[in-house]
Amino acid sequence: MTEQGSLQAGNNLDPWYSHYAERAGGLRASEVRALFAVASRPEVVSLAGGMPFVAALPQDLVIGAMDTVMREQGAVALQYGSGQGVPELREQILEVMALEGITANADDVVVTTGSQHALELVSKLFLDPGDVVISEGPSYVTAMVIFKSYQAEVEHVPMDEHGLIPEALREHIARVKASGKTIKFLYTIPSFHNPAGVTLSWERRVEILQIAQENEILVLEDNPYGLLYFDRPAPDAIRSLDEDGVVYLGTFSKTLAPGFRVGWALAPHAIREKLVLANEAAVLSPSSFSQLVISEYLKTADWKGQINTFRGVYHERKNAMISALGEYLPELTWTNPNGGFYVWVTLPERLDSKAMLPRAVKELVAYTPGTAFFADGDGHQNMRLSFCYPTPENIRLGIRRLATVIRGELDLLDTFAGTGSLDALRDGQRFAAPPPNIS
Amino acid sequence: MTEQGSLQAGNNLDPWYSHYAERAGGLRASEVRALFAVASRPEVVSLAGGMPFVAALPQDLVIGAMDTVMREQGAVALQYGSGQGVPELREQILEVMALEGITANADDVVVTTGSQHALELVSKLFLDPGDVVISEGPSYVTAMVIFKSYQAEVEHVPMDEHGLIPEALREHIARVKASGKTIKFLYTIPSFHNPAGVTLSWERRVEILQIAQENEILVLEDNPYGLLYFDRPAPDAIRSLDEDGVVYLGTFSKTLAPGFRVGWALAPHAIREKLVLANEAAVLSPSSFSQLVISEYLKTADWKGQINTFRGVYHERKNAMISALGEYLPELTWTNPNGGFYVWVTLPERLDSKAMLPRAVKELVAYTPGTAFFADGDGHQNMRLSFCYPTPENIRLGIRRLATVIRGELDLLDTFAGTGSLDALRDGQRFAAPPPNIS
Repeated sequence: MTEQGSLQAGNNLDPWYSHYAERAGGLRASEVRALFAVASRPEVVSLAGGMPFVAALPQDLVIGAMDTVMREQGAVALQYGSGQGVPELREQILEVMALEGITANADDVVVTTGSQHALELVSKLFLDPGDVVISEGPSYVTAMVIFKSYQAEVEHVPMDEHGLIPEALREHIARVKASGKTIKFLYTIPSFHNPAGVTLSWERRVEILQIAQENEILVLEDNPYGLLYFDRPAPDAIRSLDEDGVVYLGTFSKTLAPGFRVGWALAPHAIREKLVLANEAAVLSPSSFSQLVISEYLKTADWKGQINTFRGVYHERKNAMISALGEYLPELTWTNPNGGFYVWVTLPERLDSKAMLPRAVKELVAYTPGTAFFADGDGHQNMRLSFCYPTPENIRLGIRRLATVIRGELDLLDTFAGTGSLDALRDGQRFAAPPPNIS
Repeated sequence: MTEQGSLQAGNNLDPWYSHYAERAGGLRASEVRALFAVASRPEVVSLAGGMPFVAALPQDLVIGAMDTVMREQGAVALQYGSGQGVPELREQILEVMALEGITANADDVVVTTGSQHALELVSKLFLDPGDVVISEGPSYVTAMVIFKSYQAEVEHVPMDEHGLIPEALREHIARVKASGKTIKFLYTIPSFHNPAGVTLSWERRVEILQIAQENEILVLEDNPYGLLYFDRPAPDAIRSLDEDGVVYLGTFSKTLAPGFRVGWALAPHAIREKLVLANEAAVLSPSSFSQLVISEYLKTADWKGQINTFRGVYHERKNAMISALGEYLPELTWTNPNGGFYVWVTLPERLDSKAMLPRAVKELVAYTPGTAFFADGDGHQNMRLSFCYPTPENIRLGIRRLATVIRGELDLLDTFAGTGSLDALRDGQRFAAPPPNIS
């Protein structure tokens, strides 16, 4: 129970301190979530969050769908529904997934409260304490929070510009197996990776699936960004290659709006049955109202055209970010994604993105330090920059501010080089003017 | 892993059979959920489900709230929100809870995806394998499914017409403690109990809280029905007596509509902090759209008047059920609830509600057998009858059909008394014409 001490200060004032389950020790506030408070201050250019730009969605489309649902199916929309989700929506989800090469049966789709909840449910079904989840390094923050909340360990496998490296995956699997631990699944975001911005090539999708099959490892394919490509579509989903070894997660949060909290899992049949039971236990049924509104939207609106609109918006913003990085920070390196929301930046070796963050916020720009995306404390030399939410102008402004911060840090390093006093100086900065909710 | 064998037939065809977490063995399809399929056939009078009668809610009230939310706060409604919930809604929830004597701070409220999800999150935070949850016997089905899914044991304490019996609670606590097991919380539905229909008296609320305090047992007070009283309000909530030892669960599913999936937990501060982390891990944030619509409804509609409307509807239906029971089945005994959705019926000793169910469905009436509400297989002599959803006329029709079924069973018993062949006969009935999805 010692881990719980680090959950928060003042735990000894909690009369229920000794009553929590062991797994509660794995629940920590993520750095990304804590940043939301900062991002909401209007004077800060936030390149930190992952909020989609919902203003690009014509609200009349949504209002029209709501009115139709309430007038035609109001009693159903207001009622409890099936724990698996609305049948018609599950059929429509097949059409969405077909765009990425997936053939499936609606009976194997489970609608969830965002794809986040599908991640939670799959983890609850599979993870015993001490189990290992293999994931890319870096990986999605709140997936790792879930894995740890079920007392699993995350084993990171490195990526290059073509995504997860198959040879490294083989090595890591062999090493984990040799240690006697059980690998429960490979968690992967193959297209427009969060946070790395890279996309797994088709050849590697085939090879990585084969490695997983050889080792009897379930693949958990998380694909929130796949349809938000820029120049050319991502390769087909891993799930398009195999229906028995892949649990595929999708969501309407990025192609429509996150406020409805509707995502889904497509799972092998036996797993799907257990997912429905877990979903019923957790929420009885996902929101009937949200599901019916999305179903009506998909039936009546030009949803593919709307996805094209989103693609255009994000493409322009990505270009603004890449061009500003080239202009203001040519000494750094970064990924240049062909879709999604994120650019992964590598700083000069001497800099520490986490230590630098308070100074950046003071200069009115926020980013997510790379450490948030590693389970093992790695990532100090990286930062994730999001181009999804701010305007192109604000992205340029944010990068310019970031350049000021980075120059300032490098100047400090040059000035104090060899004196050993930089860390003390950094600590002084950090505690002199801590931004709210950043630690 | 042997328990998993009973999860479903054909598990040996599941290639991932050996990969599930141990806790997955605790996830079983509940008898109540399985009955939803039957209840949806129009010719069956279902006294089984717990669906609120949402047709009593004027849809224009909801449509108006939706339109206002979309036109005034569309971008917020469609976006991710806080993991704790919309601040204004949390303030309004204080007003709802004040009706049952609760004084609290909005900072200690966590909005969840129905109060079911609050139950799930509290269980995830507190339950280690082998822990004990004390609850009334009978108790809410899907709470027990959650407790078992975290590998906890449920210890039932009996009730009488004034609710949970304090002396029995003391005895059970002593017995569990003597066995060396850890009691994590007392799960209780003090007002208009599901399924028993009884209400814990004020004196007993005070005494039971005191017993919990003496034994350092957290109280998990689940109160979905409290405001749906008939003749007189229920006593104030247990939470009104103590803010440090009670996690209180509330919901809009019964006072407004379940289709939005909005409930809440009110928790001691340190527990609340962990609940928010668990909520963020599970769903990132509850639906902004649903929360804002409910907030707007509470702000602009006569929500207390609407609750009075619901009370009138359910009171009339309860009266229809009690009067039909008196008319058609005077030889049975039942509880006569002063609120909520349920009547708990005790059959003559010779009858078995679970064995009788297929015959009832054949006679076009459905109920929930008492066994669904006990973790230990008890309840064969009981059934839960719901009066919330069917019209008074259909309630009478359903009870009349039920009387036919019960008469038939008793006739059979008389005919075959002493011959020992009744069980064989019953089994024959059960397997000759099994209704869909009932086992």
